[in-house]
Amino acid sequence: MTYYEDVEIGSTAELGSYTFTREEIIAFAEKFDPQPFHVDEEAAKRSHFGALCASGWHTAATWMKCLMAYQNRSNATDKPIRAAGASPGFRNMRWLKPVYAGDTITYVTEVTEKSVSRNKPEWGVVRSHNTGTNQHGELVFDFEGAVMMRRRP
Amino acid sequence: MTYYEDVEIGSTAELGSYTFTREEIIAFAEKFDPQPFHVDEEAAKRSHFGALCASGWHTAATWMKCLMAYQNRSNATDKPIRAAGASPGFRNMRWLKPVYAGDTITYVTEVTEKSVSRNKPEWGVVRSHNTGTNQHGELVFDFEGAVMMRRRP
Repeated sequence: MTYYEDVEIGSTAELGSYTFTREEIIAFAEKFDPQPFHVDEEAAKRSHFGALCASGWHTAATWMKCLMAYQNRSNATDKPIRAAGASPGFRNMRWLKPVYAGDTITYVTEVTEKSVSRNKPEWGVVRSHNTGTNQHGELVFDFEGAVMMRRRP
Repeated sequence: MTYYEDVEIGSTAELGSYTFTREEIIAFAEKFDPQPFHVDEEAAKRSHFGALCASGWHTAATWMKCLMAYQNRSNATDKPIRAAGASPGFRNMRWLKPVYAGDTITYVTEVTEKSVSRNKPEWGVVRSHNTGTNQHGELVFDFEGAVMMRRRP
């Protein structure tokens, strides 16, 4: 198990990459965000995006998917962050460029801040800067995340 | 069409309510956030949440779902906010309490701030405070949102 004390400020990890298919973009958007440029290729071409692109909430949820896959790839204790059950929330999520059908987004996390919980001193909060970058090297998405981690007993 | 100029700071709207079923909580989490307390009822009982609860990303995406449904319910122009195609992002998302299977969350939005885009003066940014409250009246989720809206030509 990785504890709060094991996490180092400045450590980074590439969580993984994900290719957003047309089918998945439409399936997610039909359920949660049925704006024309997320569900209809022809309407998307006529929109200011110019082509079908993923809901921002899809891009965000896929960050979580990649984090979980990253944590499950091994039991190594050298993971810079590890969600331990809860997050107090996030700050400043930005959708900087569209994620088009066929785009591959690579998610990277960097530990930026640590603090012990005031109310629950057996827990710490680890804050991180998280980015999504497309196959052209363009930053498309970022936010400041936070996860709760147990302190070493 | 509702333009940026039609939006009034302080106006509020109840976007709608959504009941999170066990099946939908598990389906979303299996895809994006397969932590035990989101996908396995027995494991959830043993976790610090005490019962199966929704991924925070599911709670957030459902806010978008309710906003879209709200906007589509009529063509009335008195809607306090209307997503016009893009969002620059959001600030300070908080997951304050778990959303358990069977919980009904009511989403409310209030317009808090307006500003004209510096780079694109034909667009304005409308900021809002958004909340999700459960059937017991407890605030479970909030964030500061932002949508782009066209200015009146």
